[in-house]
Amino acid sequence: MARSIITLTTDFGSADHLAGTMRGVILNINSDAEIADITHNVMPYDLLDGALAIGQAYKYFPPKTIHVVVVDPGVGTKRRALLVSAGVHYFVAPDNGVLSMVYDREEQLTVRYVTAEHYFLQPLSNTFHGRDVFAPVAAWLSKNWQTQSFGEEVTDFVRFTLPKPKAAGKGLKGVVLRVDTFGNLLTNFTAEDLPQMLTGTSFKMTVGNSVITNLVQTFAEGVANIPVVVLGSSGYFEIIVNRGNASKALGANRGAEVTVEFK
Amino acid sequence: MARSIITLTTDFGSADHLAGTMRGVILNINSDAEIADITHNVMPYDLLDGALAIGQAYKYFPPKTIHVVVVDPGVGTKRRALLVSAGVHYFVAPDNGVLSMVYDREEQLTVRYVTAEHYFLQPLSNTFHGRDVFAPVAAWLSKNWQTQSFGEEVTDFVRFTLPKPKAAGKGLKGVVLRVDTFGNLLTNFTAEDLPQMLTGTSFKMTVGNSVITNLVQTFAEGVANIPVVVLGSSGYFEIIVNRGNASKALGANRGAEVTVEFK
Amino acid sequence: MARSIITLTTDFGSADHLAGTMRGVILNINSDAEIADITHNVMPYDLLDGALAIGQAYKYFPPKTIHVVVVDPGVGTKRRALLVSAGVHYFVAPDNGVLSMVYDREEQLTVRYVTAEHYFLQPLSNTFHGRDVFAPVAAWLSKNWQTQSFGEEVTDFVRFTLPKPKAAGKGLKGVVLRVDTFGNLLTNFTAEDLPQMLTGTSFKMTVGNSVITNLVQTFAEGVANIPVVVLGSSGYFEIIVNRGNASKALGANRGAEVTVEFK
Repeated sequence: MARSIITLTTDFGSADHLAGTMRGVILNINSDAEIADITHNVMPYDLLDGALAIGQAYKYFPPKTIHVVVVDPGVGTKRRALLVSAGVHYFVAPDNGVLSMVYDREEQLTVRYVTAEHYFLQPLSNTFHGRDVFAPVAAWLSKNWQTQSFGEEVTDFVRFTLPKPKAAGKGLKGVVLRVDTFGNLLTNFTAEDLPQMLTGTSFKMTVGNSVITNLVQTFAEGVANIPVVVLGSSGYFEIIVNRGNASKALGANRGAEVTVEFK
Repeated sequence: MARSIITLTTDFGSADHLAGTMRGVILNINSDAEIADITHNVMPYDLLDGALAIGQAYKYFPPKTIHVVVVDPGVGTKRRALLVSAGVHYFVAPDNGVLSMVYDREEQLTVRYVTAEHYFLQPLSNTFHGRDVFAPVAAWLSKNWQTQSFGEEVTDFVRFTLPKPKAAGKGLKGVVLRVDTFGNLLTNFTAEDLPQMLTGTSFKMTVGNSVITNLVQTFAEGVANIPVVVLGSSGYFEIIVNRGNASKALGANRGAEVTVEFK
Repeated sequence: MARSIITLTTDFGSADHLAGTMRGVILNINSDAEIADITHNVMPYDLLDGALAIGQAYKYFPPKTIHVVVVDPGVGTKRRALLVSAGVHYFVAPDNGVLSMVYDREEQLTVRYVTAEHYFLQPLSNTFHGRDVFAPVAAWLSKNWQTQSFGEEVTDFVRFTLPKPKAAGKGLKGVVLRVDTFGNLLTNFTAEDLPQMLTGTSFKMTVGNSVITNLVQTFAEGVANIPVVVLGSSGYFEIIVNRGNASKALGANRGAEVTVEFK
């Protein structure tokens, strides 16, 4: 029988014991579980950033993987804990929209409100449900696979819309969704939004005071210090500087407006 | 048979190969061991910070987990390497007090001075006993479970007292034990120290020039930009700013004095 | 049968889902593989830094470990993907010299150009071969162990020479190879380069405006604030400050010139 795989995506950072403690809770319930970190560096409390992290990674894991996502500014309040079956994957997360990108991509969705408190750690804290709720729910699921034992199905779960490009003048107006480790600017323009980009149409992409007019196929094609556009591995166009840091070079951060026009 | 679980808690950071090399040493001795990181970001050389990290996390792991703790400013000197049986857990660490919080919490303690050099990597370096001593000792223990084969029992191991609150005027004087990833200030006040806090008595907590008078149950109850107190998941009161960074907002860091008074 | 062990060494950092996604790809192909991080904090695009990270760590892992090394500024270009058998270890990496330290240390080398595209993820991106090429190649190798099925042997692989000390006046001129988490300066002087260091000969090591004249056996012997030299665990001499940060204290970073003279 294949091992149970449980992934972790949180905003806990790496400076604290928090992610380590979650690993302990999981292994204490199911010592055969395989725990794989996606990232613990979601921007603190940032649901969009968390949605992007899990949304870009989950589908590369095997069927039956259980993904624990803890970006949880409402911890301890009445916000619900959810257990989601989405296609061939499972998700355990607070009901705050952090799974919105998963909801967008999967047609087969069953969302349960986790009310079976016997699965929780006791005493239940008000401030660390990663340890007391989400980790144990994932671990018990990896043993019993009985989703219906965790709670009733709900349909009014929280779901937000990822920012979509809008028409603006002769082109589109979008936004920088995130800045990656290399300083690349991930825009919210997809190949579907901008098919002309891939057929050689001249374009002018503007972010702040900088104008980018070149599309490249690979990072290495970029000329030193000149920002260029590339279709990134997650399906979004990215503004990059070859071997440089586009965010610093352009003074643009997450949330910066990006416009694109065609001739 | 359940897998052997070995945790790692170090101040090695994530920029170097050091933690990775320890993983290699362990797997080379026991390729079936399951290695779980607690954190590698203990503040460099900081025994109190290390004691807090392992002290808050270890009890969530399964019985028979072996915890390797390497915060080791005396590496290569005559400081001893220890193998500790504490309740249902094992610890491998330098004899410098980094296990003090474990010693405080466990009544069943057997502390051994590891002298069986045939378990060490050779040649033995003077600067990386995480690789040459602690990782191999943990890995061999996970195979043979013969604690007595590692060395004789000692009773004069190094143990420090965690800073305790002291009486001061009409209240208590304490300290910020650490600042977490979110900027929350972990004080050394526990629920036992301040039972009045939980029964609704009016209080005034002071750190630097800031005065906090509100206790909340959850982070989310905090009003934007106003620092409040919450009983944290490790049993210490924390000063937090909802969706903000209390350390920055209050200009308070680790070691800052915190006082509390009641009316 | 022992588990297949796959290590990861990249410059992806920990802020993104990238390393997590690679874990997913591996587990999706071989759910029994054990994945061990060496580091994800190689300096971005820096082949020498990547060569040092894998070069210092790999030999501590068990025989048959598969090491995936992704520092890949040429991703998507015609640079080749390699599968290397080196002694008892395997390596999967771009053909850009990042394995140079492995090539230096292992006599039994078989280097293959990976052309068997049926092992790659489809569609193949131009910007994330860690996900689409290197992770799946490692995972398939961990199942079939048929190196010859991945591509033909080549001999013209890229290999660079690590910077070696040079004669300069009455001594040698070297360089700071890297600065570690603690701020220690790793020079490129080995015990073989400077045998006099270990036999008590008076020396003068200079970096920037600072002169170091003391060799110590352990970090703890260093006097506060005074930089000293120690033979580090990787075989290179290091300039350190006991419980301090030598890089900050001396204002010296990676690439700084270091000279040593003897009387």
